[in-house]
Amino acid sequence: MNIKQGETIDDLQLNNLLIIQKESGFKFGIDAVLLAYFAHTAKSQRTLDLCTGSGIVPLLLSAKTDTPDICGIEIQEDMADMAQRSVLLNNLDTRLHITCGDLKQPPYPKRSFDVVTCNPPYMKCGSGLVNDMNQKLISRHEICCTLEDVINTASSLLKPHGKLFLVHRPSRLVDIFHTMRIHRIEPKRMQLVQPTADKPANLVLIEGLFDGGSELNVMKPLVVYNADGTYTSELNEIYERGLL
Amino acid sequence: MNIKQGETIDDLQLNNLLIIQKESGFKFGIDAVLLAYFAHTAKSQRTLDLCTGSGIVPLLLSAKTDTPDICGIEIQEDMADMAQRSVLLNNLDTRLHITCGDLKQPPYPKRSFDVVTCNPPYMKCGSGLVNDMNQKLISRHEICCTLEDVINTASSLLKPHGKLFLVHRPSRLVDIFHTMRIHRIEPKRMQLVQPTADKPANLVLIEGLFDGGSELNVMKPLVVYNADGTYTSELNEIYERGLL
Repeated sequence: MNIKQGETIDDLQLNNLLIIQKESGFKFGIDAVLLAYFAHTAKSQRTLDLCTGSGIVPLLLSAKTDTPDICGIEIQEDMADMAQRSVLLNNLDTRLHITCGDLKQPPYPKRSFDVVTCNPPYMKCGSGLVNDMNQKLISRHEICCTLEDVINTASSLLKPHGKLFLVHRPSRLVDIFHTMRIHRIEPKRMQLVQPTADKPANLVLIEGLFDGGSELNVMKPLVVYNADGTYTSELNEIYERGLL
Repeated sequence: MNIKQGETIDDLQLNNLLIIQKESGFKFGIDAVLLAYFAHTAKSQRTLDLCTGSGIVPLLLSAKTDTPDICGIEIQEDMADMAQRSVLLNNLDTRLHITCGDLKQPPYPKRSFDVVTCNPPYMKCGSGLVNDMNQKLISRHEICCTLEDVINTASSLLKPHGKLFLVHRPSRLVDIFHTMRIHRIEPKRMQLVQPTADKPANLVLIEGLFDGGSELNVMKPLVVYNADGTYTSELNEIYERGLL
Protein backbone atom coordinates (compact mmCIF):
# COMPACT_ATOMS: atom_id res chain seq x y z
CA MET A 1 0.00 0.00 0.00
CA ASN A 2 1.17 3.47 -0.90
CA ILE A 3 0.02 5.42 2.11
CA LYS A 4 1.33 5.57 5.64
CA GLN A 5 -0.44 6.10 8.93
CA GLY A 6 -1.86 9.60 9.27
CA GLU A 7 -2.04 10.12 5.51
CA THR A 8 -5.05 10.42 3.21
CA ILE A 9 -5.52 10.10 -0.52
CA ASP A 10 -7.44 13.00 -2.08
CA ASP A 11 -8.95 13.11 -5.56
CA LEU A 12 -7.83 16.19 -7.51
CA GLN A 13 -10.85 15.76 -9.85
CA LEU A 14 -8.56 16.33 -12.79
CA ASN A 15 -7.42 13.54 -15.12
CA ASN A 16 -8.15 11.07 -12.29
CA LEU A 17 -5.17 12.42 -10.41
CA LEU A 18 -4.77 11.49 -6.76
CA ILE A 19 -2.59 13.13 -4.12
CA ILE A 20 -1.35 11.82 -0.80
CA GLN A 21 -1.49 14.36 2.00
CA LYS A 22 -1.09 14.30 5.77
CA GLU A 23 -4.41 14.25 7.59
CA SER A 24 -3.36 16.81 10.17
CA GLY A 25 -0.48 18.46 8.36
CA PHE A 26 -0.10 21.20 5.78
CA LYS A 27 -2.52 20.63 2.88
CA PHE A 28 -2.24 22.36 -0.44
CA GLY A 29 -4.27 25.54 -0.71
CA ILE A 30 -5.64 27.84 -3.33
CA ASP A 31 -2.16 29.37 -3.79
CA ALA A 32 -0.85 26.18 -5.40
CA VAL A 33 -3.91 25.91 -7.64
CA LEU A 34 -3.59 29.53 -8.73
CA LEU A 35 0.13 29.14 -9.33
CA ALA A 36 -0.55 26.21 -11.69
CA TYR A 37 -3.29 28.25 -13.42
CA PHE A 38 -0.92 31.20 -13.82
CA ALA A 39 2.03 29.10 -15.04
CA HIS A 40 0.38 26.49 -17.23
CA THR A 41 0.34 28.58 -20.41
CA ALA A 42 4.13 28.68 -20.66
CA LYS A 43 5.68 26.30 -23.19
CA SER A 44 8.26 24.17 -21.44
CA GLN A 45 10.31 21.08 -22.15
CA ARG A 46 11.59 21.00 -18.59
CA THR A 47 9.97 22.54 -15.53
CA LEU A 48 11.16 22.66 -11.92
CA ASP A 49 8.97 23.31 -8.88
CA LEU A 50 10.92 24.61 -5.88
CA CYS A 51 9.59 23.88 -2.36
CA THR A 52 7.32 21.32 -3.97
CA GLY A 53 5.88 19.92 -0.72
CA SER A 54 3.31 17.24 -1.52
CA GLY A 55 4.05 17.68 -5.24
CA ILE A 56 0.74 19.42 -5.91
CA VAL A 57 2.13 21.88 -8.49
CA PRO A 58 3.96 19.20 -10.58
CA LEU A 59 0.84 17.02 -10.44
CA LEU A 60 -1.41 19.86 -11.68
CA LEU A 61 1.10 20.84 -14.36
CA SER A 62 1.31 17.24 -15.57
CA ALA A 63 -2.38 17.49 -16.46
CA LYS A 64 -2.40 21.07 -17.74
CA THR A 65 0.73 21.01 -19.92
CA ASP A 66 2.55 18.74 -22.35
CA THR A 67 5.86 19.25 -20.55
CA PRO A 68 7.62 15.86 -20.72
CA ASP A 69 9.95 16.46 -17.75
CA ILE A 70 8.61 18.06 -14.57
CA CYS A 71 10.88 18.08 -11.53
CA GLY A 72 10.15 18.96 -7.94
CA ILE A 73 12.57 19.57 -5.09
CA GLU A 74 11.63 19.44 -1.40
CA ILE A 75 13.94 19.73 1.62
CA GLN A 76 11.74 17.84 4.12
CA GLU A 77 12.38 14.11 3.74
CA ASP A 78 8.92 12.91 4.73
CA MET A 79 7.24 15.37 2.35
CA ALA A 80 9.53 14.46 -0.56
CA ASP A 81 8.87 10.76 0.11
CA MET A 82 5.12 11.39 0.16
CA ALA A 83 5.30 13.38 -3.10
CA GLN A 84 7.28 10.58 -4.72
CA ARG A 85 4.60 8.06 -3.65
CA SER A 86 1.92 10.32 -5.20
CA VAL A 87 3.89 10.25 -8.45
CA LEU A 88 3.99 6.44 -8.37
CA LEU A 89 0.31 6.24 -7.39
CA ASN A 90 -0.54 8.16 -10.59
CA ASN A 91 1.92 6.20 -12.77
CA LEU A 92 3.67 9.45 -13.63
CA ASP A 93 7.22 8.40 -12.78
CA THR A 94 8.40 8.80 -16.37
CA ARG A 95 7.40 12.49 -16.40
CA LEU A 96 7.57 13.64 -12.76
CA HIS A 97 10.80 13.52 -10.81
CA ILE A 98 10.83 14.39 -7.12
CA THR A 99 14.13 15.04 -5.35
CA CYS A 100 14.74 15.48 -1.65
CA GLY A 101 17.32 18.23 -1.39
CA ASP A 102 18.20 21.82 -0.52
CA LEU A 103 17.35 24.31 -3.25
CA LYS A 104 20.33 26.38 -2.14
CA GLN A 105 22.54 23.58 -3.55
CA PRO A 106 20.39 22.48 -6.46
CA PRO A 107 21.30 19.07 -7.92
CA TYR A 108 20.64 20.20 -11.50
CA PRO A 109 22.86 21.64 -14.23
CA LYS A 110 22.77 25.43 -14.65
CA ARG A 111 20.54 26.82 -17.40
CA SER A 112 18.61 23.56 -17.73
CA PHE A 113 14.98 24.59 -17.11
CA ASP A 114 12.49 26.49 -19.27
CA VAL A 115 10.19 27.16 -16.36
CA VAL A 116 10.65 27.35 -12.59
CA THR A 117 7.64 27.59 -10.27
CA CYS A 118 7.55 28.23 -6.54
CA ASN A 119 4.96 28.58 -3.82
CA PRO A 120 7.42 29.46 -1.06
CA PRO A 121 6.69 28.20 2.45
CA TYR A 122 6.13 31.70 3.82
CA MET A 123 4.18 30.53 6.82
CA LYS A 124 5.08 26.88 7.24
CA CYS A 125 8.19 27.18 9.36
CA GLY A 126 7.15 30.28 11.27
CA SER A 127 3.70 31.22 12.41
CA GLY A 128 0.83 32.84 10.59
CA LEU A 129 0.95 35.64 13.10
CA VAL A 130 4.59 36.51 12.59
CA ASN A 131 4.81 39.78 10.69
CA ASP A 132 7.03 40.22 7.69
CA MET A 133 9.81 42.01 9.49
CA ASN A 134 10.02 39.22 12.04
CA GLN A 135 9.53 36.64 9.35
CA LYS A 136 12.48 38.05 7.51
CA LEU A 137 14.66 37.84 10.63
CA ILE A 138 13.46 34.33 11.29
CA SER A 139 14.05 33.38 7.68
CA ARG A 140 17.73 34.03 8.00
CA HIS A 141 18.06 31.68 10.96
CA GLU A 142 15.32 29.11 11.03
CA ILE A 143 13.26 28.93 7.85
CA CYS A 144 14.58 26.55 5.23
CA CYS A 145 14.95 29.14 2.48
CA THR A 146 14.49 32.84 1.95
CA LEU A 147 12.86 34.60 -0.97
CA GLU A 148 16.33 35.52 -2.19
CA ASP A 149 17.42 31.85 -2.11
CA VAL A 150 14.45 30.94 -4.30
CA ILE A 151 15.09 33.72 -6.82
CA ASN A 152 18.85 33.20 -6.84
CA THR A 153 18.44 29.48 -7.53
CA ALA A 154 15.81 30.09 -10.21
CA SER A 155 18.17 32.58 -11.86
CA SER A 156 20.98 30.02 -12.02
CA LEU A 157 18.78 27.20 -13.32
CA LEU A 158 16.67 29.00 -15.93
CA LYS A 159 17.64 28.82 -19.58
CA PRO A 160 17.99 32.16 -21.43
CA HIS A 161 14.49 33.67 -21.54
CA GLY A 162 13.24 31.00 -19.18
CA LYS A 163 10.37 31.97 -16.89
CA LEU A 164 9.88 32.04 -13.13
CA PHE A 165 6.35 31.87 -11.71
CA LEU A 166 5.81 32.79 -8.07
CA VAL A 167 2.87 33.06 -5.72
CA HIS A 168 3.49 35.18 -2.64
CA ARG A 169 2.07 37.82 -0.34
CA PRO A 170 1.43 41.32 -1.67
CA SER A 171 3.25 42.78 1.35
CA ARG A 172 6.46 41.35 -0.11
CA LEU A 173 6.04 42.87 -3.56
CA VAL A 174 8.91 45.34 -3.23
CA ASP A 175 11.24 42.59 -1.99
CA ILE A 176 10.15 40.36 -4.86
CA PHE A 177 10.56 42.94 -7.63
CA HIS A 178 13.84 44.27 -6.26
CA THR A 179 15.35 40.82 -5.72
CA MET A 180 14.19 39.50 -9.09
CA ARG A 181 15.69 42.44 -10.96
CA ILE A 182 18.99 42.12 -9.09
CA HIS A 183 19.10 38.45 -10.11
CA ARG A 184 18.35 39.16 -13.81
CA ILE A 185 14.75 37.91 -13.67
CA GLU A 186 12.57 40.80 -14.83
CA PRO A 187 8.98 40.80 -13.55
CA LYS A 188 6.79 40.88 -16.67
CA ARG A 189 3.29 40.01 -15.48
CA MET A 190 1.48 40.42 -12.18
CA GLN A 191 -1.99 39.47 -11.00
CA LEU A 192 -3.22 40.36 -7.53
CA VAL A 193 -5.73 37.96 -5.95
CA GLN A 194 -8.48 39.48 -3.80
CA PRO A 195 -10.67 37.32 -1.54
CA THR A 196 -13.67 39.52 -2.51
CA ALA A 197 -14.06 42.61 -4.68
CA ASP A 198 -14.14 44.93 -1.68
CA LYS A 199 -11.14 43.50 0.16
CA PRO A 200 -7.47 44.11 -0.57
CA ALA A 201 -5.44 41.37 -2.23
CA ASN A 202 -3.94 38.68 0.00
CA LEU A 203 -2.01 36.85 -2.72
CA VAL A 204 -0.04 37.89 -5.77
CA LEU A 205 0.99 35.91 -8.85
CA ILE A 206 4.16 37.00 -10.64
CA GLU A 207 5.80 35.94 -13.90
CA GLY A 208 9.46 36.84 -14.42
CA LEU A 209 11.57 36.50 -17.56
CA PHE A 210 15.28 35.76 -17.36
CA ASP A 211 17.10 38.72 -18.96
CA GLY A 212 13.75 40.28 -19.94
CA GLY A 213 13.32 43.97 -20.68
CA SER A 214 11.59 46.27 -18.21
CA GLU A 215 7.86 46.66 -18.60
CA LEU A 216 5.28 45.08 -16.31
CA ASN A 217 1.86 43.91 -17.42
CA VAL A 218 -0.46 44.46 -14.45
CA MET A 219 -3.52 42.30 -15.07
CA LYS A 220 -6.92 42.99 -13.61
CA PRO A 221 -7.19 41.43 -10.15
CA LEU A 222 -8.51 37.92 -9.72
CA VAL A 223 -11.44 37.93 -7.27
CA VAL A 224 -12.07 34.59 -5.53
CA TYR A 225 -15.48 34.93 -3.86
CA ASN A 226 -18.70 36.76 -4.61
CA ALA A 227 -20.34 38.66 -1.76
CA ASP A 228 -22.56 35.63 -1.07
CA GLY A 229 -19.57 33.33 -0.55
CA THR A 230 -19.83 31.46 -3.88
CA TYR A 231 -16.91 31.37 -6.28
CA THR A 232 -16.79 34.14 -8.89
CA SER A 233 -17.18 33.28 -12.56
CA GLU A 234 -13.42 33.79 -12.97
CA LEU A 235 -12.71 31.15 -10.34
CA ASN A 236 -15.35 28.85 -11.76
CA GLU A 237 -13.64 29.20 -15.11
CA ILE A 238 -10.37 28.11 -13.55
CA TYR A 239 -12.18 25.15 -11.98
CA GLU A 240 -13.97 24.25 -15.22
CA ARG A 241 -10.69 24.27 -17.03
CA GLY A 242 -9.93 21.37 -14.73
CA LEU A 243 -7.44 22.95 -12.36
CA LEU A 244 -8.99 21.38 -9.29
CA MET B 1 -5.81 90.98 -15.86
CA ASN B 2 -4.18 87.76 -14.77
CA ILE B 3 -4.67 85.67 -17.86
CA LYS B 4 -2.94 85.72 -21.20
CA GLN B 5 -4.20 84.98 -24.66
CA GLY B 6 -5.02 81.30 -25.13
CA GLU B 7 -5.57 80.71 -21.41
CA THR B 8 -8.78 79.99 -19.49
CA ILE B 9 -9.73 80.20 -15.83
CA ASP B 10 -11.37 77.06 -14.47
CA ASP B 11 -13.23 76.72 -11.18
CA LEU B 12 -11.91 73.81 -9.07
CA GLN B 13 -15.21 73.79 -7.12
CA LEU B 14 -13.21 73.54 -3.93
CA ASN B 15 -12.79 76.46 -1.50
CA ASN B 16 -13.56 78.82 -4.44
CA LEU B 17 -10.19 77.92 -5.95
CA LEU B 18 -9.52 78.92 -9.53
CA ILE B 19 -6.84 77.63 -11.88
CA ILE B 20 -5.41 79.13 -15.04
CA GLN B 21 -4.86 76.61 -17.82
CA LYS B 22 -4.03 76.74 -21.51
CA GLU B 23 -7.07 76.32 -23.70
CA SER B 24 -5.36 73.97 -26.13
CA GLY B 25 -2.50 72.77 -23.95
CA PHE B 26 -2.06 70.09 -21.30
CA LYS B 27 -4.86 70.30 -18.75
CA PHE B 28 -4.73 68.59 -15.38
CA GLY B 29 -6.29 65.16 -15.31
CA ILE B 30 -7.61 62.66 -12.83
CA ASP B 31 -4.01 61.65 -11.98
CA ALA B 32 -3.38 64.99 -10.24
CA VAL B 33 -6.68 64.81 -8.38
CA LEU B 34 -5.98 61.25 -7.23
CA LEU B 35 -2.44 62.17 -6.20
CA ALA B 36 -3.81 64.96 -3.97
CA TYR B 37 -6.41 62.53 -2.54
CA PHE B 38 -3.70 59.95 -1.84
CA ALA B 39 -1.24 62.44 -0.33
CA HIS B 40 -3.48 64.77 1.63
CA THR B 41 -3.59 62.67 4.80
CA ALA B 42 0.12 63.13 5.49
CA LYS B 43 1.00 65.69 8.15
CA SER B 44 3.43 68.17 6.71
CA GLN B 45 4.93 71.53 7.63
CA ARG B 46 6.57 71.81 4.23
CA THR B 47 5.55 70.08 1.03
CA LEU B 48 7.15 70.16 -2.43
CA ASP B 49 5.45 69.22 -5.68
CA LEU B 50 7.90 68.25 -8.41
CA CYS B 51 6.91 68.80 -12.09
CA THR B 52 4.12 70.98 -10.78
CA GLY B 53 2.90 72.19 -14.19
CA SER B 54 -0.12 74.44 -13.72
CA GLY B 55 0.23 74.10 -9.93
CA ILE B 56 -2.84 71.90 -9.63
CA VAL B 57 -1.43 69.67 -6.89
CA PRO B 58 -0.26 72.54 -4.63
CA LEU B 59 -3.64 74.25 -5.16
CA LEU B 60 -5.57 71.12 -4.17
CA LEU B 61 -3.27 70.48 -1.19
CA SER B 62 -3.75 74.08 0.00
CA ALA B 63 -7.43 73.28 0.46
CA LYS B 64 -7.05 69.72 1.74
CA THR B 65 -4.26 70.23 4.29
CA ASP B 66 -3.08 72.71 6.91
CA THR B 67 0.45 72.72 5.50
CA PRO B 68 1.67 76.33 5.84
CA ASP B 69 4.39 76.08 3.17
CA ILE B 70 3.68 74.32 -0.13
CA CYS B 71 6.26 74.65 -2.89
CA GLY B 72 6.08 73.69 -6.54
CA ILE B 73 8.89 73.47 -9.08
CA GLU B 74 8.39 73.48 -12.85
CA ILE B 75 11.04 73.56 -15.58
CA GLN B 76 8.93 75.12 -18.34
CA GLU B 77 8.96 78.89 -17.93
CA ASP B 78 5.50 79.59 -19.34
CA MET B 79 3.92 76.90 -17.14
CA ALA B 80 5.69 78.12 -13.99
CA ASP B 81 4.58 81.67 -14.78
CA MET B 82 1.00 80.50 -15.26
CA ALA B 83 1.08 78.56 -11.97
CA GLN B 84 2.43 81.62 -10.17
CA ARG B 85 -0.44 83.70 -11.55
CA SER B 86 -2.93 81.08 -10.32
CA VAL B 87 -1.38 81.41 -6.85
CA LEU B 88 -1.83 85.18 -6.96
CA LEU B 89 -5.35 84.86 -8.36
CA ASN B 90 -6.27 82.81 -5.27
CA ASN B 91 -4.40 85.09 -2.83
CA LEU B 92 -2.31 82.14 -1.74
CA ASP B 93 1.14 83.70 -2.17
CA THR B 94 1.92 83.44 1.53
CA ARG B 95 1.46 79.65 1.48
CA LEU B 96 2.22 78.56 -2.09
CA HIS B 97 5.61 79.15 -3.67
CA ILE B 98 6.20 78.33 -7.31
CA THR B 99 9.74 78.17 -8.67
CA CYS B 100 10.84 77.85 -12.27
CA GLY B 101 13.80 75.50 -12.18
CA ASP B 102 15.29 72.11 -12.92
CA LEU B 103 14.49 69.50 -10.29
CA LYS B 104 17.86 67.88 -11.02
CA GLN B 105 19.47 70.94 -9.38
CA PRO B 106 16.85 71.70 -6.75
CA PRO B 107 17.07 75.20 -5.24
CA TYR B 108 16.17 73.97 -1.76
CA PRO B 109 18.25 72.83 1.23
CA LYS B 110 18.65 69.07 1.68
CA ARG B 111 16.33 67.35 4.18
CA SER B 112 13.95 70.30 4.24
CA PHE B 113 10.59 68.76 3.20
CA ASP B 114 8.17 66.51 5.09
CA VAL B 115 6.34 65.53 1.92
CA VAL B 116 7.25 65.43 -1.77
CA THR B 117 4.60 64.78 -4.42
CA CYS B 118 5.03 64.17 -8.13
CA ASN B 119 2.86 63.47 -11.14
CA PRO B 120 5.73 63.01 -13.56
CA PRO B 121 5.26 64.22 -17.13
CA TYR B 122 5.35 60.71 -18.57
CA MET B 123 3.60 61.68 -21.77
CA LYS B 124 4.02 65.44 -22.06
CA CYS B 125 7.39 65.61 -23.74
CA GLY B 126 6.99 62.44 -25.77
CA SER B 127 3.85 61.05 -27.29
CA GLY B 128 1.04 59.02 -25.81
CA LEU B 129 1.85 56.32 -28.30
CA VAL B 130 5.49 56.01 -27.37
CA ASN B 131 5.95 52.78 -25.49
CA ASP B 132 7.83 52.56 -22.23
CA MET B 133 11.06 51.26 -23.67
CA ASN B 134 11.17 54.09 -26.19
CA GLN B 135 10.03 56.56 -23.58
CA LYS B 136 12.91 55.51 -21.40
CA LEU B 137 15.38 56.06 -24.23
CA ILE B 138 13.81 59.42 -25.01
CA SER B 139 13.86 60.36 -21.34
CA ARG B 140 17.61 60.19 -21.28
CA HIS B 141 17.92 62.62 -24.17
CA GLU B 142 14.86 64.75 -24.60
CA ILE B 143 12.41 64.52 -21.73
CA CYS B 144 13.03 67.01 -18.96
CA CYS B 145 13.47 64.45 -16.20
CA THR B 146 13.50 60.70 -15.71
CA LEU B 147 11.82 58.69 -12.98
CA GLU B 148 15.22 58.28 -11.36
CA ASP B 149 15.77 62.06 -11.34
CA VAL B 150 12.47 62.51 -9.52
CA ILE B 151 13.21 59.83 -6.92
CA ASN B 152 16.83 60.88 -6.45
CA THR B 153 15.81 64.50 -5.85
CA ALA B 154 13.00 63.50 -3.49
CA SER B 155 15.48 61.37 -1.57
CA SER B 156 17.86 64.30 -1.10
CA LEU B 157 15.13 66.75 -0.09
CA LEU B 158 13.02 64.64 2.27
CA LYS B 159 13.53 64.93 6.00
CA PRO B 160 14.14 61.66 7.90
CA HIS B 161 10.90 59.67 7.64
CA GLY B 162 9.54 62.13 5.12
CA LYS B 163 7.14 60.79 2.52
CA LEU B 164 7.09 60.68 -1.27
CA PHE B 165 3.77 60.34 -3.10
CA LEU B 166 3.79 59.39 -6.77
CA VAL B 167 1.21 58.72 -9.43
CA HIS B 168 2.48 56.75 -12.42
CA ARG B 169 1.74 53.97 -14.86
CA PRO B 170 1.46 50.40 -13.58
CA SER B 171 3.82 49.25 -16.34
CA ARG B 172 6.61 51.12 -14.52
CA LEU B 173 6.00 49.50 -11.13
CA VAL B 174 9.22 47.48 -11.11
CA ASP B 175 11.26 50.55 -12.10
CA ILE B 176 9.53 52.57 -9.39
CA PHE B 177 9.98 50.04 -6.57
CA HIS B 178 13.55 49.21 -7.54
CA THR B 179 14.62 52.85 -7.92
CA MET B 180 12.88 53.95 -4.71
CA ARG B 181 14.58 51.24 -2.68
CA ILE B 182 17.99 52.06 -4.15
CA HIS B 183 17.43 55.69 -3.15
CA ARG B 184 16.37 54.86 0.44
CA ILE B 185 12.67 55.56 -0.11
CA GLU B 186 10.82 52.38 0.81
CA PRO B 187 7.42 51.88 -0.88
CA LYS B 188 4.92 51.46 1.96
CA ARG B 189 1.49 51.81 0.36
CA MET B 190 0.16 51.19 -3.13
CA GLN B 191 -3.24 51.63 -4.71
CA LEU B 192 -3.93 50.61 -8.29
CA VAL B 193 -6.56 52.64 -10.16
CA GLN B 194 -8.80 50.76 -12.61
CA PRO B 195 -11.02 52.60 -15.11
CA THR B 196 -13.74 49.97 -14.48
CA ALA B 197 -13.93 46.84 -12.34
CA ASP B 198 -13.32 44.56 -15.32
CA LYS B 199 -10.37 46.43 -16.81
CA PRO B 200 -6.76 46.36 -15.67
CA ALA B 201 -5.34 49.35 -13.81
CA ASN B 202 -4.00 52.25 -15.87
CA LEU B 203 -2.68 54.30 -12.95
CA VAL B 204 -0.95 53.53 -9.69
CA LEU B 205 -0.58 55.60 -6.52
CA ILE B 206 2.49 54.97 -4.37
CA GLU B 207 3.57 56.22 -0.95
CA GLY B 208 7.22 55.85 0.00
CA LEU B 209 8.88 56.48 3.36
CA PHE B 210 12.45 57.75 3.57
CA ASP B 211 14.48 55.07 5.42
CA GLY B 212 11.31 53.04 6.02
CA GLY B 213 11.33 49.31 6.72
CA SER B 214 10.25 46.81 4.10
CA GLU B 215 6.57 45.91 4.07
CA LEU B 216 4.11 47.09 1.46
CA ASN B 217 0.44 47.75 2.16
CA VAL B 218 -1.42 46.89 -1.06
CA MET B 219 -4.81 48.59 -0.82
CA LYS B 220 -7.89 47.43 -2.66
CA PRO B 221 -7.97 48.95 -6.14
CA LEU B 222 -9.73 52.24 -6.74
CA VAL B 223 -12.32 51.84 -9.51
CA VAL B 224 -13.23 55.05 -11.33
CA TYR B 225 -16.35 54.25 -13.36
CA ASN B 226 -19.32 51.94 -12.98
CA ALA B 227 -20.34 49.84 -15.97
CA ASP B 228 -22.91 52.53 -16.93
CA GLY B 229 -20.24 55.24 -17.13
CA THR B 230 -21.14 57.01 -13.87
CA TYR B 231 -18.55 57.53 -11.16
CA THR B 232 -18.32 54.79 -8.53
CA SER B 233 -19.24 55.55 -4.93
CA GLU B 234 -15.53 55.60 -4.11
CA LEU B 235 -14.91 58.33 -6.64
CA ASN B 236 -17.99 60.23 -5.55
CA GLU B 237 -16.64 60.08 -2.02
CA ILE B 238 -13.40 61.66 -3.21
CA TYR B 239 -15.45 64.34 -4.98
CA GLU B 240 -17.68 64.94 -1.97
CA ARG B 241 -14.61 65.39 0.18
CA GLY B 242 -14.02 68.38 -2.02
CA LEU B 243 -11.13 67.18 -4.11
CA LEU B 244 -12.54 68.56 -7.32
